Amino acid sequence: MSKVSLRDLAKTLDVSISTVSKALRNSYEISAETRERVMEAARQLGYHPNPYAGSLRHHKSKTIALLVPELTNNFFIQAISGAESVAQERDYHILIYNTHEQYQKEESIIGHLGNGRVDGVIMSLTSETGRYDHLNDLIQSGIPIVFFDRIAHEIETAKITTDDFTSAFNGTEHLIRHGCRDIAFLSLSDSLSIDNKRKQGYLEALNKHDLNLPASRIVRCEGDDAGNHTRIRELLQAEKRPDAIFASVEKLALSTYNAARDAGVRIPEDLKVICFSNLRTAPLLNPSLTTITQPAYQMGAQAATVLFKYLEKKRPVIQNENIILKSELIPRDSTRKTSN
Amino acid sequence: MSKVSLRDLAKTLDVSISTVSKALRNSYEISAETRERVMEAARQLGYHPNPYAGSLRHHKSKTIALLVPELTNNFFIQAISGAESVAQERDYHILIYNTHEQYQKEESIIGHLGNGRVDGVIMSLTSETGRYDHLNDLIQSGIPIVFFDRIAHEIETAKITTDDFTSAFNGTEHLIRHGCRDIAFLSLSDSLSIDNKRKQGYLEALNKHDLNLPASRIVRCEGDDAGNHTRIRELLQAEKRPDAIFASVEKLALSTYNAARDAGVRIPEDLKVICFSNLRTAPLLNPSLTTITQPAYQMGAQAATVLFKYLEKKRPVIQNENIILKSELIPRDSTRKTSN
Repeated sequence: MSKVSLRDLAKTLDVSISTVSKALRNSYEISAETRERVMEAARQLGYHPNPYAGSLRHHKSKTIALLVPELTNNFFIQAISGAESVAQERDYHILIYNTHEQYQKEESIIGHLGNGRVDGVIMSLTSETGRYDHLNDLIQSGIPIVFFDRIAHEIETAKITTDDFTSAFNGTEHLIRHGCRDIAFLSLSDSLSIDNKRKQGYLEALNKHDLNLPASRIVRCEGDDAGNHTRIRELLQAEKRPDAIFASVEKLALSTYNAARDAGVRIPEDLKVICFSNLRTAPLLNPSLTTITQPAYQMGAQAATVLFKYLEKKRPVIQNENIILKSELIPRDSTRKTSN
Repeated sequence: MSKVSLRDLAKTLDVSISTVSKALRNSYEISAETRERVMEAARQLGYHPNPYAGSLRHHKSKTIALLVPELTNNFFIQAISGAESVAQERDYHILIYNTHEQYQKEESIIGHLGNGRVDGVIMSLTSETGRYDHLNDLIQSGIPIVFFDRIAHEIETAKITTDDFTSAFNGTEHLIRHGCRDIAFLSLSDSLSIDNKRKQGYLEALNKHDLNLPASRIVRCEGDDAGNHTRIRELLQAEKRPDAIFASVEKLALSTYNAARDAGVRIPEDLKVICFSNLRTAPLLNPSLTTITQPAYQMGAQAATVLFKYLEKKRPVIQNENIILKSELIPRDSTRKTSN
């Protein structure tokens, strides 16, 4: 892969990334003189020639990239499955990338997609991503991005999300109606749009029901499984234990089940648990798990549909659009009303 | 995508696919005359020019394809994750394809990978795949294939599997030692290598322990989830119910849990259950599920490692090699000894 980026070239020449990109693509919008300057700089800096230069000119690599922050996660797998199914119908190919929740990986992968390898990108941000230069660069170079689930509000494009605020509000009210007064919220990251919306929904429901909880009831769980397990176990063994846990993502609910078992805390008698989850085995768990289930497959399919629509129209820019699909709260035994 | 395949061209010209492929790649092994004949036929038949002709000549699309028969399956996701992680280290890109357990899809996808889009393929066959022409064609056209899990014995290449026979033998003995005498085996497909090895392991263990069971104790479950659920429920409600179920794949164990609940059959008291599975929630199920857990991540990583080794050496043919990684039997409550 090229070590010199479009951004490097643009900086050297003091022109926009878009100009560099168009010059390299031999666009009619660029003067012969500018094109020559760009080509010369590209040669001198050792900008790697496009492996798929031919396809770039006509947007027909017929390939898109799909970036997810985790692969072994039911939500993302179902979303990939939805996108893949739409891609197969349209004869598109999907490159898949795991960013492992690391901003640096996301930046590096995105940095290498601008050379004609793909016509467009579907992605969900990492929990570390708080800057969007790499994404803006890619879009400026002519490769559109559609976001799903974890989106960048600041970037104008299509964004497929679920009703995170309302779902978290309803989930929290569900716990309150089932007798909970001291609800902890397990958060994944402060920089994630979905995490913030879910927290807001949780706080708004507490507020509506006049429940004043200390800020420490929002517990950041951004580590690995072992670290999260320890943190949740400490929470459950503290002098004042919460009577419910709202897990913002599936893996934190599973850590809660394991930690509760280790701490001798009974679900739902001592602790009620609810979470955002697409776990197929939720009804078979001990006890069965109350979930807010996102339309993951549909979100992936919708993201692909929007992207292909624009690619096929050869429209250069995707209009800003928020597509919000509804999640479903499925009550099960983990939040069952109990006598104590 | 091109509707005319290399095979069509070869048939028309009465030469081998390998000759056509080499001619199109401008190989020195092909005479100028033959090359001209092939190019002419390609033009006449409308063989679609390679979108990545440049990369084909030098094997540097730096892209591989990964074909799996199911995406929403923990085994395959972990295998993809393993392959993806090795690919990221080596700066390779992964195209992902879901064949949906359909031979026709597999054939169509494979038929479109020979044009330089990828340097190599990692795959697990569909449960319908019993013919391998499409795979042989691809290999002849210069694109190597590495198999994992569901392999084609007949094709000489590297194959990564787990010890299916031994694992199934041990799993069946585990059930027998825990008091089971009438063990049903839920099979996915007669044409699958792994299914057959697992059945053989099961039958060999029955044989060793002098258990003579009717052939109907091997139950084919090749339908969708609803169909499998019905079939298993009928099995559990029959006059003579088996005292154990060995599910050859994870989804059949989950169907068994659902069917047992519907039929009022208690696990493990009335029915013991074991299965091949990479389910992360197996310890949290009600009851916790005894699994034979395959080293899925390692299998995917190993397949990618072998493939990249050959691609980087520019060796045209992968040597026949069977790499067998060990699975692990993890006893849990679904096969716990009970008093009745």
